Amino acid sequence: MPAPLHDPTHHGFASDNISGAHPEVIEAIVAANNGHVVSYGEDPYTARLQQVLRGHFGEQATAYPVFTGTGANIMSLAMLTDRWDAVICAGTAHIHVDECGAPEKLAGIKTLTVDAPDGKLTPALVARRAHGFGVEHHAQPKVVSVAQCTELGTVYTPDELRALADQAHGLGMYLHLDGSRLANAAVSLGCGLGDITTAVGADVISLGGTKNGLIGAEAVVVLNPEAVRGPLYVRKLLTQLPSKMRFVSAQLLALYEGDLWQRSAGRANAMAARLAAGVRDLPGVRITQSVDSDAVFAIVPRAAAERLRERFFFYDWDEATGEVRWMCTFDTTEADVDAFVATLRQALASTSTPA
Amino acid sequence: MPAPLHDPTHHGFASDNISGAHPEVIEAIVAANNGHVVSYGEDPYTARLQQVLRGHFGEQATAYPVFTGTGANIMSLAMLTDRWDAVICAGTAHIHVDECGAPEKLAGIKTLTVDAPDGKLTPALVARRAHGFGVEHHAQPKVVSVAQCTELGTVYTPDELRALADQAHGLGMYLHLDGSRLANAAVSLGCGLGDITTAVGADVISLGGTKNGLIGAEAVVVLNPEAVRGPLYVRKLLTQLPSKMRFVSAQLLALYEGDLWQRSAGRANAMAARLAAGVRDLPGVRITQSVDSDAVFAIVPRAAAERLRERFFFYDWDEATGEVRWMCTFDTTEADVDAFVATLRQALASTSTPA
Amino acid sequence: MPAPLHDPTHHGFASDNISGAHPEVIEAIVAANNGHVVSYGEDPYTARLQQVLRGHFGEQATAYPVFTGTGANIMSLAMLTDRWDAVICAGTAHIHVDECGAPEKLAGIKTLTVDAPDGKLTPALVARRAHGFGVEHHAQPKVVSVAQCTELGTVYTPDELRALADQAHGLGMYLHLDGSRLANAAVSLGCGLGDITTAVGADVISLGGTKNGLIGAEAVVVLNPEAVRGPLYVRKLLTQLPSKMRFVSAQLLALYEGDLWQRSAGRANAMAARLAAGVRDLPGVRITQSVDSDAVFAIVPRAAAERLRERFFFYDWDEATGEVRWMCTFDTTEADVDAFVATLRQALASTSTPA
Amino acid sequence: MPAPLHDPTHHGFASDNISGAHPEVIEAIVAANNGHVVSYGEDPYTARLQQVLRGHFGEQATAYPVFTGTGANIMSLAMLTDRWDAVICAGTAHIHVDECGAPEKLAGIKTLTVDAPDGKLTPALVARRAHGFGVEHHAQPKVVSVAQCTELGTVYTPDELRALADQAHGLGMYLHLDGSRLANAAVSLGCGLGDITTAVGADVISLGGTKNGLIGAEAVVVLNPEAVRGPLYVRKLLTQLPSKMRFVSAQLLALYEGDLWQRSAGRANAMAARLAAGVRDLPGVRITQSVDSDAVFAIVPRAAAERLRERFFFYDWDEATGEVRWMCTFDTTEADVDAFVATLRQALASTSTPA
Repeated sequence: MPAPLHDPTHHGFASDNISGAHPEVIEAIVAANNGHVVSYGEDPYTARLQQVLRGHFGEQATAYPVFTGTGANIMSLAMLTDRWDAVICAGTAHIHVDECGAPEKLAGIKTLTVDAPDGKLTPALVARRAHGFGVEHHAQPKVVSVAQCTELGTVYTPDELRALADQAHGLGMYLHLDGSRLANAAVSLGCGLGDITTAVGADVISLGGTKNGLIGAEAVVVLNPEAVRGPLYVRKLLTQLPSKMRFVSAQLLALYEGDLWQRSAGRANAMAARLAAGVRDLPGVRITQSVDSDAVFAIVPRAAAERLRERFFFYDWDEATGEVRWMCTFDTTEADVDAFVATLRQALASTSTPA
Repeated sequence: MPAPLHDPTHHGFASDNISGAHPEVIEAIVAANNGHVVSYGEDPYTARLQQVLRGHFGEQATAYPVFTGTGANIMSLAMLTDRWDAVICAGTAHIHVDECGAPEKLAGIKTLTVDAPDGKLTPALVARRAHGFGVEHHAQPKVVSVAQCTELGTVYTPDELRALADQAHGLGMYLHLDGSRLANAAVSLGCGLGDITTAVGADVISLGGTKNGLIGAEAVVVLNPEAVRGPLYVRKLLTQLPSKMRFVSAQLLALYEGDLWQRSAGRANAMAARLAAGVRDLPGVRITQSVDSDAVFAIVPRAAAERLRERFFFYDWDEATGEVRWMCTFDTTEADVDAFVATLRQALASTSTPA
Repeated sequence: MPAPLHDPTHHGFASDNISGAHPEVIEAIVAANNGHVVSYGEDPYTARLQQVLRGHFGEQATAYPVFTGTGANIMSLAMLTDRWDAVICAGTAHIHVDECGAPEKLAGIKTLTVDAPDGKLTPALVARRAHGFGVEHHAQPKVVSVAQCTELGTVYTPDELRALADQAHGLGMYLHLDGSRLANAAVSLGCGLGDITTAVGADVISLGGTKNGLIGAEAVVVLNPEAVRGPLYVRKLLTQLPSKMRFVSAQLLALYEGDLWQRSAGRANAMAARLAAGVRDLPGVRITQSVDSDAVFAIVPRAAAERLRERFFFYDWDEATGEVRWMCTFDTTEADVDAFVATLRQALASTSTPA
Repeated sequence: MPAPLHDPTHHGFASDNISGAHPEVIEAIVAANNGHVVSYGEDPYTARLQQVLRGHFGEQATAYPVFTGTGANIMSLAMLTDRWDAVICAGTAHIHVDECGAPEKLAGIKTLTVDAPDGKLTPALVARRAHGFGVEHHAQPKVVSVAQCTELGTVYTPDELRALADQAHGLGMYLHLDGSRLANAAVSLGCGLGDITTAVGADVISLGGTKNGLIGAEAVVVLNPEAVRGPLYVRKLLTQLPSKMRFVSAQLLALYEGDLWQRSAGRANAMAARLAAGVRDLPGVRITQSVDSDAVFAIVPRAAAERLRERFFFYDWDEATGEVRWMCTFDTTEADVDAFVATLRQALASTSTPA
């Protein structure tokens, strides 16, 4: 076996995609290897995945394994929309901010954004963009897209999601749920995956894997088959059809067949809570969002942030205010968190101005 | 470790993507796992990959790891073209036939096709489509795209490729090379990877991995930096940016740092040659293309084909003529081939009409 | 009134869009002017146009006035297709050759072309591209698009069109008819406009006007309402919704309410026939296509062609063979034709090599 | 001459595109008619238009006649952007609200909107969206697009535009100016057309015509040739290339060669001022935007608005607040305005609740 080119003991807080794969995921890849199976999804791993995900999402659900979250989101939106449609989302939405315009550029989908300070849409916010139906001059609102967890680490309650789904359906629209961190939300709420998707009336979800310990494996799960057109074609033309799908499906099976999704997301959430608890009372630190899942958003004195970043890289969230984002992951340890908190404490002390 | 859901001893001839991963590739994935590294390509595996591929393709080359061959092709073409451009390719080209229209649908790229009976373009064939330059009514030919090996298993000589590159450059166009099976071509020609790419004047290549024993890992390699615009943006917006890129790069390293690419492609090619030799003289069988790489195209009596397919699944190539395609892969064995040939021989005997 | 900047007595043979507007069309514009009417189609001229065109095409027809033939074609195809669909057309089709790739670039529509020496598709030619239904790797053939008259001036019989429509419908596809010169075809066949559209089973047509004496006025006419989705939105987003639609509709009314379409197309066709008769027996001249409408295709000795072009500009059709195209229009006169023929005769004489 | 189908004496206030054509425009069309000229722009009217517009916009300017304002805007933006770019505009911008998503749907252009209560962007507002440069996850801000006049009838001063242009250029971006009512702005400011375009550093403008008395005639004018790529191809593929361009150019000549643009816009502006003066002090009426050009925005009691609308149709601007829009045009008369004011006065009186 080749020697690693990186330090396999280093842990950071920059994102949940800086981690690798859970050991059980590696085992699943190995178990799926060897021999020949039909490509493009006609393999027993993908068939089994359908069964497992129907256990979570209901018998009407169909899963389409893909490689990336951006791919899952665009596939979802492209299946739900016609050439003249628009998608309503928060101004912080990944589909608006972090996908280089893929919805617009690959599928011509207009995004209609509304400011949502905690990352969560509400029926009132949606109503500000859901108009102009039937008027040819306006792109037609067709999908409300929310992220669960949101990009700000906050979590919708089932009732909040149900209200959005009901509003959407009442308007002839659909609800898409970007669930790249769906497991973190379910663990946070203490509920099942179906309780915040199928049960609340979501039509299509992007089901995450990579941010919870997989290697480039996500899935689109269609909960409402009436809502979509052409899923197989759309996945293919969006370059998201894995030829050796068994390996994508096997990873998703490793995560969702047993309780690995709960163990991994639970660890990440718990470490974020520990981190928040450790820094909440430090001088000059202000936590800016509810810590519902694996992310902590905080405003930190700039000098201290720079000092901290020398040891633990992380991203600015808002350069204007000094807000930063710290994220935990399935393999973050208590020791990692405690070292991070101690480093921040020292950074604050060494950079503070004496009274 | 979970039990496999498939028969890991079964080998077939339907495609080179029905195989799994080479054991050295699994080892590379394991070695890259654990600990945290920066996502989206700022990791040491991707850095090392650049070095290794520059060893093959020259110091001016830059590699962009992606997940799929379709993604690599669209990314290549999108970087090479403007909104009004067209791509000339063979009527059998993967970008024309097998990507659900992704060039047109994701990037608005018009494909101008020309019949090429052996899958290979020639300057004379290209000339039939390379006109209308400067006329606003016509999409502008900007790229000649060839596959090496072609979709028919044939292989361009370096001189043939150089003639196409020279023609393209003389017309202000670029040469893209779809190298999903580039290793098979190089082994077939007994040359290096650079000898049929950089040395002949190709501008951008899609470098294969999945069809040679990787798990969803390919790369776009830009050989002529002057030819492209916006590679990082284009990869991202096409949904082909791997967040945990270390695993894609580690697989490509496993293949291209040593001689695994040669060993694996060499095996596949040799098995195709053995298969061709075994069936060439069977009654009613006619091999229709030069067996230059890992594919054998043949016309077989329909009844025998159906009998054979009961044990070894494979695809029709041309239903009208009864032409079929058989493909070998990195883990095809001599015993596999011999069993296949024997089964075909029996099928022919049992289905032939007595004189 | 300002003085014209051009020679209003000059007539040429380069195209049917080098002509201006028929005097009755100018009168219609003037009559529609003055006062205020609702914009975007809620005006009495557009309402009346619906009635008039339903008289031609049947009560189920709905017309959508637009500015350009390219716009009409793309609007037609975009309404008929989903994101993953393809259109089968002749290699000479305007949508493939002369629209700078607009189908691909504006609507992601893949064109599947087939060689048709006389510009006319047949069921056998369509069958060469109509396959791969239901296979996710292939863009799905959804529309057969033909031009009536074709780009080569030839005209489909009603039976030929019906055979194409029947085939298309049998395959779950639609028939689009590019009728930028539909009037010329109807006059050539001695039939009504509905006889070669509605009666043969066409689903959507692009109805020409500009090439028959209008100023930038065409219409999409949906014959089969079940075949299309979102016509109003598609017209708008394709930039083809005229705000002052009364002027576009008034022009179309001038053409189609009475017999102006027949008079104008009849003149153009007759002049092309006269031209063909005049040159057919000239030494070195070979007429290459059946002269069914307003176009004459001929191979002419190059030196004579150059001499002729000094007085009458026209386009090469095939530089390789010396084939050229001459077109007549609604205001071409017998004197124009006779002068043209005489000039060609002189050119041939003065450039021929003595025996 | 056919009888008109509408009442040519009716004048309304719904939009400036409910009017017809100025009589001088009709004369220009008639003068350009008859005889044959080369199509697609190689005619003397288009050549002359270049000269005339260079008189307004400078010698470096090049004009591209098109049919619609939406077409002009999309053509402008498509020429200025690459596949991964975004455009910053006001939330009220026509390109965002009123074009059915054409920028996104035809050219994949992401719009980044910012609230601008008076319809005018400022450098501070632009700065809120102009970030993320060089980061592959974000669509790249490349164009600031403003409307002059704005959609709210307000007018930028030259200094305000120059500040936006300077900011854009400092960021490596371009300034596009949607000038569908440019003449109204220039007349409002008492300056020339070049003073608010070329002189302030705009790179590309959409030059209006239809809203100032033409029949479907607009132009893209490229002021900075370095800023754009492929104008001829982009116009063609966007379906905006007029084959009989002489008629579009002749209309634009009629408007811009002499002072018709000033006379017509001046009349519309004056009538809007008269209307505003007439209603400003009516009970319950509140004018909500500065009346800088041909539009009046006002909040009116709903019952009175409904009563007024029975005689003069107009659009709601904001149903939530009861804000409406009234527009004047080149042929609005003082009598029209006075009748409108009187009708509103009566409507208010008859619908007001007694004290």
